[in-house]
Amino acid sequence: MTASPAAPPAEAAPDVASPFDAAAVAAGVRAAQRALGAAPGARRTAVLRALEEILEERAAEILEANQLDLDEAERTGLEKPLLKRLKLDADKLEVLRDGVRQLAEVPDPVGVMKRHTQLDDGLVLRQVQSPLGVLLIIFESRPEAVIQIGALALRAGDGVILKGGAEATASNRVLVGCLRDALARCELPSDAVAGVEGREAVAALLDQEAHIDLVIPRGSGSLVRHIQSSTRIPVLGHAEGVCHLYLDGSADPAMAAKLAVDGKCDYPAACNATETVLVDRAFLPHFPAVAEALRDAGVELRCDPESQAAAPFTAAVDKIDWRTEYGDLIAGVAVVDGLDGAIEHIHRYGSGHTEAIVADDAHVAEAFLARVDSASVFHNASTRFADGFRYGLGAEVGISTGRIHARGPVGIDGLLTTRWLLTGTGQGAGDYGPGKRAFQHLTLPTSGADAGD
Amino acid sequence: MTASPAAPPAEAAPDVASPFDAAAVAAGVRAAQRALGAAPGARRTAVLRALEEILEERAAEILEANQLDLDEAERTGLEKPLLKRLKLDADKLEVLRDGVRQLAEVPDPVGVMKRHTQLDDGLVLRQVQSPLGVLLIIFESRPEAVIQIGALALRAGDGVILKGGAEATASNRVLVGCLRDALARCELPSDAVAGVEGREAVAALLDQEAHIDLVIPRGSGSLVRHIQSSTRIPVLGHAEGVCHLYLDGSADPAMAAKLAVDGKCDYPAACNATETVLVDRAFLPHFPAVAEALRDAGVELRCDPESQAAAPFTAAVDKIDWRTEYGDLIAGVAVVDGLDGAIEHIHRYGSGHTEAIVADDAHVAEAFLARVDSASVFHNASTRFADGFRYGLGAEVGISTGRIHARGPVGIDGLLTTRWLLTGTGQGAGDYGPGKRAFQHLTLPTSGADAGD
Repeated sequence: MTASPAAPPAEAAPDVASPFDAAAVAAGVRAAQRALGAAPGARRTAVLRALEEILEERAAEILEANQLDLDEAERTGLEKPLLKRLKLDADKLEVLRDGVRQLAEVPDPVGVMKRHTQLDDGLVLRQVQSPLGVLLIIFESRPEAVIQIGALALRAGDGVILKGGAEATASNRVLVGCLRDALARCELPSDAVAGVEGREAVAALLDQEAHIDLVIPRGSGSLVRHIQSSTRIPVLGHAEGVCHLYLDGSADPAMAAKLAVDGKCDYPAACNATETVLVDRAFLPHFPAVAEALRDAGVELRCDPESQAAAPFTAAVDKIDWRTEYGDLIAGVAVVDGLDGAIEHIHRYGSGHTEAIVADDAHVAEAFLARVDSASVFHNASTRFADGFRYGLGAEVGISTGRIHARGPVGIDGLLTTRWLLTGTGQGAGDYGPGKRAFQHLTLPTSGADAGD
Repeated sequence: MTASPAAPPAEAAPDVASPFDAAAVAAGVRAAQRALGAAPGARRTAVLRALEEILEERAAEILEANQLDLDEAERTGLEKPLLKRLKLDADKLEVLRDGVRQLAEVPDPVGVMKRHTQLDDGLVLRQVQSPLGVLLIIFESRPEAVIQIGALALRAGDGVILKGGAEATASNRVLVGCLRDALARCELPSDAVAGVEGREAVAALLDQEAHIDLVIPRGSGSLVRHIQSSTRIPVLGHAEGVCHLYLDGSADPAMAAKLAVDGKCDYPAACNATETVLVDRAFLPHFPAVAEALRDAGVELRCDPESQAAAPFTAAVDKIDWRTEYGDLIAGVAVVDGLDGAIEHIHRYGSGHTEAIVADDAHVAEAFLARVDSASVFHNASTRFADGFRYGLGAEVGISTGRIHARGPVGIDGLLTTRWLLTGTGQGAGDYGPGKRAFQHLTLPTSGADAGD
């Protein structure tokens, strides 16, 4: 095995020794992960059941640690919304335990066959789902993320290094300890989960491409951009969600108003909130009613001259940066020339996250769905639906605007890879070729285990 | 649209203007790719049929250009094996046309449904295969790669920037011209394919992460390592293939000898050739026969002291670097303690490419397949089977030792991503929640189009 740090007692909070040896920590997680990933699925299920129990047994300890974080946060004047996100209580713990229980009931994804081919008599190839390996998760504020992501990683057979926000240090330590304890209780190496603290640790880990397979930053766009520009390890996530709603000339005006208001106001800070409304010149006569509905919902519209002229009660704005993610009750409005103009604007200024069209003309809607090059593309539905829970993926790892590996809302599939397993009876490659044996390449069933994919 | 360079006449060789504007070239490919990718599948099939015709029409021109390259290569003293790889002839062109014709007959992969879910009445989600986007392919020597990879990219709806070896400049220019001509003949923008020349162009393109989605280097390990360390764009491929053959105590000695010889000798320069033979201490009495078979096949064995003592006719070697890819008729031999020792050696020194076990004990074989963390893991078969054609994947993009996006031999699937398409009837996210509508998440059939996956 590659160098592995001495395992601390499973029940203790992970001991981040100084100086931090990122290579040793990451290699230790890799070695432990290989044992976790190669164990039978029932063992990983047992770990999740143990985790659910431990969260109950150690509830008082978790809330005490969280109170320490809250006291410190109030002392240092953390903002109200962040305080709310930091706080754990009995209800939140109950929701966490529910989530862990649900994951324990999910069929084990490791070993599920994706492809099954008989290459020749007695030479059979299987492509099987396998744990991705070692994940580095960097998140802010909400300590629940430790358990939500940690449990997902355990279900996938992945090792995970968790770096939470400094304001949740005490809470995170106890929660990481719960994950490690659950592994130890099932006689699996607790080092498959590690907690780390401090920016220096993250910086050092971002260089460990030999031992870390995927980085998932969950937080602000600036956090994600910083991570993306600091590592050669693949990064799953999105820095921006500049989502567009295009109101086609054939749009039903009432639906247009409803979806504009829902897209902007349902949760303005979300990455899938609508930032820009694109108005087909042919829809312009109906635009004032949409603008009124948005105004009545408290939205400040930043209109280009043509849309401002059509709805004079909106403020004229000198210069609009169409790449802005407002994350607030503000939306940009641009008039475009039909579908081509809308798509040109989206491809030029968008972030590839989610775009929607409101249209009654089925041909226009179909062309929009075929041509828009974004992770999620909707017809007559709010951009706010771009979400793993709403898509029915179960727990969500994040939303990716990248095209590699996973795109859009990412469920547990994003934490898996595949391996190719070939079972022979002594065949060599030299047995095949002109005048020798020929490959059969018979497709065999992948069995019912591969349901839903 | 983002800035797009003026399109040169489709039939001309791509004009690489000086100074090279990498952003403009890559953005131009992106814009053209979006038109190609959004076109109906029949249009991409027509492009492939046009390409097949053009390769026939322009055969003399292709061979003339190739002769220029060959003359220059002889003048500069290019090595014999490279000369052979550089040379095109009527037979090689026929094979190329066959490959293009086969791709024209493959069902179009774009739009194939991977998931189909009814979220609610009148709110239906589809996850559909989509072109990955823009590929940068860097390859050496063999000009056929232009057509092989170019045609695969066209089938997937991808744009492609091709950078071949300097020694094939004239051949590559004509072949890139054929691809561009095929697009133009079908009224699609020829800029979806671009040819570039020179190291400076590659260096500049490796910075274009906004416009290039995947880099595929095909060539030496040093080329791949150089690319991997020079870009933040995802790189698909492998720098090394340090493949292991483990001879378990339960192995059939004759099979062990056969698979060692086939793994090493069938094509010693291949990435899937066996580099290290791991001998279970319990198999040691049978090792001399294996060593003799390898010696008789012309293989130089570099044995550790224990294996050397068992087969004294092998040379003693002072120090063995177990991470070496010999690429020649040389193999390392190490004695290990059973399965655990073999797996420890593989995880410590291997490149994650392909490993094989020879064993009659089914439990040991199963454990090897479950525990070895490599892209391909074989039982009683030669490591040489790790190959897209042998796996039945059709044309091969490359072999990936990464875990993200694609692992092992990669077929056309590696050139695709997915998009999520949601068709609604005016739903907003605010319509759902406690006391409001609930999601149904009904799994719908993905139809027969999704066969074999």
